Amino acid sequence: MGKGRVEAFSDGVIAILITIMVLEMRVPEGGTVQDLLPVIPVFLSYVLSFLYLGIYWNNHHHMLHTVETVRGGILWANLHLLFWLSLIPFVTHWMNITHFARIPTALYGGVLLMAALSYMILQGRIIAAQGSASLLKKAIGKDWKGRLSPLIYLLAIFLALWTRWGAISLYVLVALVWLIPDRRIERVLSK
Amino acid sequence: MGKGRVEAFSDGVIAILITIMVLEMRVPEGGTVQDLLPVIPVFLSYVLSFLYLGIYWNNHHHMLHTVETVRGGILWANLHLLFWLSLIPFVTHWMNITHFARIPTALYGGVLLMAALSYMILQGRIIAAQGSASLLKKAIGKDWKGRLSPLIYLLAIFLALWTRWGAISLYVLVALVWLIPDRRIERVLSK
Amino acid sequence: MGKGRVEAFSDGVIAILITIMVLEMRVPEGGTVQDLLPVIPVFLSYVLSFLYLGIYWNNHHHMLHTVETVRGGILWANLHLLFWLSLIPFVTHWMNITHFARIPTALYGGVLLMAALSYMILQGRIIAAQGSASLLKKAIGKDWKGRLSPLIYLLAIFLALWTRWGAISLYVLVALVWLIPDRRIERVLSK
Amino acid sequence: MGKGRVEAFSDGVIAILITIMVLEMRVPEGGTVQDLLPVIPVFLSYVLSFLYLGIYWNNHHHMLHTVETVRGGILWANLHLLFWLSLIPFVTHWMNITHFARIPTALYGGVLLMAALSYMILQGRIIAAQGSASLLKKAIGKDWKGRLSPLIYLLAIFLALWTRWGAISLYVLVALVWLIPDRRIERVLSK
Repeated sequence: MGKGRVEAFSDGVIAILITIMVLEMRVPEGGTVQDLLPVIPVFLSYVLSFLYLGIYWNNHHHMLHTVETVRGGILWANLHLLFWLSLIPFVTHWMNITHFARIPTALYGGVLLMAALSYMILQGRIIAAQGSASLLKKAIGKDWKGRLSPLIYLLAIFLALWTRWGAISLYVLVALVWLIPDRRIERVLSK
Repeated sequence: MGKGRVEAFSDGVIAILITIMVLEMRVPEGGTVQDLLPVIPVFLSYVLSFLYLGIYWNNHHHMLHTVETVRGGILWANLHLLFWLSLIPFVTHWMNITHFARIPTALYGGVLLMAALSYMILQGRIIAAQGSASLLKKAIGKDWKGRLSPLIYLLAIFLALWTRWGAISLYVLVALVWLIPDRRIERVLSK
Repeated sequence: MGKGRVEAFSDGVIAILITIMVLEMRVPEGGTVQDLLPVIPVFLSYVLSFLYLGIYWNNHHHMLHTVETVRGGILWANLHLLFWLSLIPFVTHWMNITHFARIPTALYGGVLLMAALSYMILQGRIIAAQGSASLLKKAIGKDWKGRLSPLIYLLAIFLALWTRWGAISLYVLVALVWLIPDRRIERVLSK
Repeated sequence: MGKGRVEAFSDGVIAILITIMVLEMRVPEGGTVQDLLPVIPVFLSYVLSFLYLGIYWNNHHHMLHTVETVRGGILWANLHLLFWLSLIPFVTHWMNITHFARIPTALYGGVLLMAALSYMILQGRIIAAQGSASLLKKAIGKDWKGRLSPLIYLLAIFLALWTRWGAISLYVLVALVWLIPDRRIERVLSK
């Protein structure tokens, strides 16, 4: 079975999630620069979540390039990933209206953790379906970025209960690490 | 006529529906674990509706794999299905804000029932268009899952007026039955 | 230039419009049948607007089947159509919260009129681009449905100022006329 | 790597942005013509933002026609463009509820400026990837429209602090200049 609709559906969901968050940015009542100031932290957390969703879209895009056919199990693993991604606007919004309180900041990490784990499950499913000569397995190699990220999220969740800015710094750090274009899959595919 | 746009449009509508429901999850004002507790039943009903929409997308995806060309009647049968699916966020939301009152819980089953019936109509239309050698007809076989589900919804609707948790258990049960990847169409197609 | 993205973009916009309207259906606070009663007219106007958007998607789908390449002018004529369609949720919502007051009911017809005219402009553009052997021109023939509809909308707009239910009956009537699957394009294409 | 998903994702995001803005148009409580009057400036700013998003979609559509394969850097440059476009509904809304106050009107220009610059970055990335025989480079030529627009936005931002209607006139002017179908890419491609 072709992968076209899996890509199209995932693109649709991620496109909606990335734009829904703008709707959550409350427009200030007044029209001065002072009125805009409280929007800045909200805006920055929007940028962070935009980056995360962009990274997932980017990686998803690359990962599916190695796939030719899709079976039932992969469809559900993909929906599972989309489910956790769909909670990113919710936790971003909660973090914002509570001014980055401890529990919401920890939950933000929790959703990132679950998204990362569900991404690994999807990756594992695809590798299993591709068999011993799996292109994707060759492409990701030791996958240190994929393996380390959940550990950092876990650390950040505990850190959030003690120092929120420490947790947020870790979230930003992981995003920046993933921002560096990942040439692994491109390299393997071009061979 | 090609089926590409029917798939794309259906993907778009289902992708929007599945993400709209997150918007309806009210973010708590406070930032403590206690503030999050009332969100848990809302979250669970979101998970249930996410599952149902995911199941419909999944089955729709498989069903259209057996289709080559699409005619006017199938387009409308498809829109009819999308119409009932589009009411899922509404009834999910009503069930949530009334804390699973009897009527909203029954109406949730009513929308599931109508969606199931409109799915069967679409299925019947496709089988009729494919003629006597219908691939889809061969694939679904006796279709006991498809035939039994509306009866269980009907039972759940009446049960909701008496015991809401009985009805909700039936909704969960049907979702779980459909979650098991359905290999029928894949098997017939791979031959 | 290919028509793929024009179809994809139009599908996206219409899919969003058709689902946005559900968001506008206010969920009742209470959980009884009585609480649901005021939602019924809102629901019916949602059904009507769903039908109209479905008809436009359907006709748009058929019309673009006759098109092979798309040029700048057609892109803008298409965006022009999408613009008027995007106002349907707004007028539907205004009609609903004012309980079908005269001006909102007339404006609903005004938006339908503009959508119909912009559809005709798009149709004209495509026919002009296809030249003398235009498939679309052959398919639509005398196009009495396309020509009559704007006149009925115009009549309904004036009727709305005097009797709203007369206007609404005309809106329903036109929708029903268009609901009958239009085999013209399918017939010409299959030759 | 194919460009299909980059187009689909961009189409999805722009389609959502263009329709989100309708949601922001507050429906008047009353049902008279007088109730509708305050919506008119909101409506006009919606038209302007619709035009801008339509122009970006149109140009993006043409630009990607010259592209065959897409690499990591182009994906991020594209997401960067979508990020700034995603802020258009926010600034449109802020401008509306403050009745075109100076700072919101200037910020509207700021977002247009950033969108224009990010479009130029994307264009530059594509030209660099295409190498010395770049089709896109040939198509855009001296690109006076692309180069002049950011300067006019910059002028409008400063003008907004002094006279808002001067700034808005410039925004309208640039939109009208871009509305004229741009045949450059079509001409180069048809050779």
